[in-house]
Amino acid sequence: MSRKNALYAQSGGVTAVINATAAGVISECRLNPDRIGTVFAARNGILGALREELVDTAAYTDEQIAALRHTPGGAFGSCRFKLKGLEENQAEYRRLIEVLAAHDIGYLFYNGGGDSADTAYKVSKIGDELDYPVVCVGVPKTIDNDLPVTDCCPGFGSVAKYVAVSMMEASLDVESMAETSTKVFVMEVMGRHAGWIAAAGGLAGNGPDEPPQIILFPEVPFDQEAFLARVRQSVEQTGYCSIVVSEGVRWPDGRFLADSGVKDAFGHAQLGGCAPVVAGIVKAELGYKYHWAVLDYLQRSARHLASAVDLEQATAVGQEAVRLALAGKNSVIPVIERLADKPYRWKVSEAQLADMANVEKMMPRSFITENGFGITEECRRYLEPLIEGEAYPPYAAGLPQYIRLPLTLIDQKLDAFAP
Amino acid sequence: MSRKNALYAQSGGVTAVINATAAGVISECRLNPDRIGTVFAARNGILGALREELVDTAAYTDEQIAALRHTPGGAFGSCRFKLKGLEENQAEYRRLIEVLAAHDIGYLFYNGGGDSADTAYKVSKIGDELDYPVVCVGVPKTIDNDLPVTDCCPGFGSVAKYVAVSMMEASLDVESMAETSTKVFVMEVMGRHAGWIAAAGGLAGNGPDEPPQIILFPEVPFDQEAFLARVRQSVEQTGYCSIVVSEGVRWPDGRFLADSGVKDAFGHAQLGGCAPVVAGIVKAELGYKYHWAVLDYLQRSARHLASAVDLEQATAVGQEAVRLALAGKNSVIPVIERLADKPYRWKVSEAQLADMANVEKMMPRSFITENGFGITEECRRYLEPLIEGEAYPPYAAGLPQYIRLPLTLIDQKLDAFAP
Repeated sequence: MSRKNALYAQSGGVTAVINATAAGVISECRLNPDRIGTVFAARNGILGALREELVDTAAYTDEQIAALRHTPGGAFGSCRFKLKGLEENQAEYRRLIEVLAAHDIGYLFYNGGGDSADTAYKVSKIGDELDYPVVCVGVPKTIDNDLPVTDCCPGFGSVAKYVAVSMMEASLDVESMAETSTKVFVMEVMGRHAGWIAAAGGLAGNGPDEPPQIILFPEVPFDQEAFLARVRQSVEQTGYCSIVVSEGVRWPDGRFLADSGVKDAFGHAQLGGCAPVVAGIVKAELGYKYHWAVLDYLQRSARHLASAVDLEQATAVGQEAVRLALAGKNSVIPVIERLADKPYRWKVSEAQLADMANVEKMMPRSFITENGFGITEECRRYLEPLIEGEAYPPYAAGLPQYIRLPLTLIDQKLDAFAP
Repeated sequence: MSRKNALYAQSGGVTAVINATAAGVISECRLNPDRIGTVFAARNGILGALREELVDTAAYTDEQIAALRHTPGGAFGSCRFKLKGLEENQAEYRRLIEVLAAHDIGYLFYNGGGDSADTAYKVSKIGDELDYPVVCVGVPKTIDNDLPVTDCCPGFGSVAKYVAVSMMEASLDVESMAETSTKVFVMEVMGRHAGWIAAAGGLAGNGPDEPPQIILFPEVPFDQEAFLARVRQSVEQTGYCSIVVSEGVRWPDGRFLADSGVKDAFGHAQLGGCAPVVAGIVKAELGYKYHWAVLDYLQRSARHLASAVDLEQATAVGQEAVRLALAGKNSVIPVIERLADKPYRWKVSEAQLADMANVEKMMPRSFITENGFGITEECRRYLEPLIEGEAYPPYAAGLPQYIRLPLTLIDQKLDAFAP
């Protein structure tokens, strides 16, 4: 096979370790100079690819690339932009191939979640059709942990660790003062459809008296009566009640709790914010003093508390993607395969993009306790290895030394294009 | 001086390092067995002292006491309970002295903020009056950093570090995706009256293009027009805008932003939550996509990201309190004195409880930029040393090994008393 250039693009919500995947891809490419020439990165993901806004990563030293391993966010920029179907959207796919051809790019590494796997799959098919063969390899990433086929998703383990530790710490605080102060603490986490992140909060404790005493999953319709009974029981038995609530929790009729018509004084709808709704229900029905926190982006950018296992996996899928590409495997994606729970053993194996695209993996019912408010031992066995190990960034003067790469765009060869 | 027992009590909101102070007090007492007999801890602070709910800390090994140094929350429990004035409340002060006398307690270490300094001061005076002399020493603690006399407050440095790092990390995330996703990110921090914690967010970056582009302080009335102009300018110049907002920010007429009449669908007032109000204003007036986070208790319990300087100071004031007590100093409190900014040098010195009680130290105007939205170099020089150094807790299986001390109460000698 002849020497070709490569293009790496980040897609969708970023994670604490997506840059470790970037480092894995780029460093592995550098190990194969006879096969891979220039390694480009697209600015702001697929948008940059379509606009021919490319960065030549040769500009970065090995040390800079290594520093990506400890830097959260998306170093080259990412985007929320879904390519439509091939039929509706021939122009954009055609443009993408033009950009690849203009820069002699034979390898495309597309780092994202389910939507991105779908895009990568389509690109992997269109190259042949348009007579510009490109080896298109997906690289998995999502904090939501909702990709099928792979045992877990790079990015999730670090969120899980952050959420479990945060719940543990805040609950120690609440417990200290519950007699005269806050009795109910509500912590909202991400996960619009799948409750994996909420479930991770369950690792903060074990047993009915340990926090979180309640987890509210998107997979379980909100049963206000059972919820309030459990809150009261917890406060009466333990002195307080810590609650993890997923942003995606819904009423039995399907409406999101977060969309419960919260409005400010000006009549602005307050979107997001399930935690204040849950806290408000507790206050109104039981009268307990409450506090609430909303983690929002902090949970997916908290590189300072990343899971070492997650970091290793994020790096490994990046490296393996390059190996798969060099083996000529088009339309595939490296995934994490679990070999054993305890001690945890895993390896990277190969899956088809077609099997990954557009499928969301929800929490199995067997991972949720019968009452719907906790995680089972089976779930715990699944989650525990994913948060193992600490992988601290270097610090100077009290702050993490995150790197910001200068993004100098290469000269364009094509006419402008507005996606 | 004869051998006497000692009592340690935690008061008010707990911090990530208040237990390090407890460890400092207890370990220093243990170094002086000829002077100090039993070291009691009050369960739930002053309430436990009044109820004669005491723990004998001899039950704990040196290793357990050392583990307090890396455990957040209040190990013996704390409370929000302010003793009234001596005149209105003779019964409670009298009871307190009875409890001290019943257990031969000659040293009282009262670990709290401004209100607690006031209580400790009163107790230090009443002993003589009631003919039971007790050496009462305050020990400073508050995340709010609003105590006078001391250069900084144990507990603050760790919150400051957590807030700065969180702002830095979330902003990297927002910046990565701003073109097609969130343009304005709002992070709410504690600080009802003083803006020290909000100011710490300013350490995340430096210069107009670096995050946070806006800080909203309780000391500066909210100027909606100037705020919106600054948001727009930041989004246009930098692509996004990160905002730190203190829970204590007020409208020019004095109302809290957080009390802007936010109600849910049931008409429940949503107390707390300045961040959604600020985000709602941005959305309504400028139309930018936003996200918001509320740190709440996470910021004051995040022992996983404590400042090493803060931890050292929290320990040192505990140790010094015992030395002051053994020197027979009644009605005093050890404080942090700054000797140099850079490299940072500090020592513990001695202050009068009377000078500490009931005074709140606000941010000086010279610490806030002219436009009211940032911190000055002078402020930065003050804050930077306080977040220096990392002091990670030990981990096992991916989680911090926080200790939970069993709280076995000693036999009571007095009749029950309901404060």
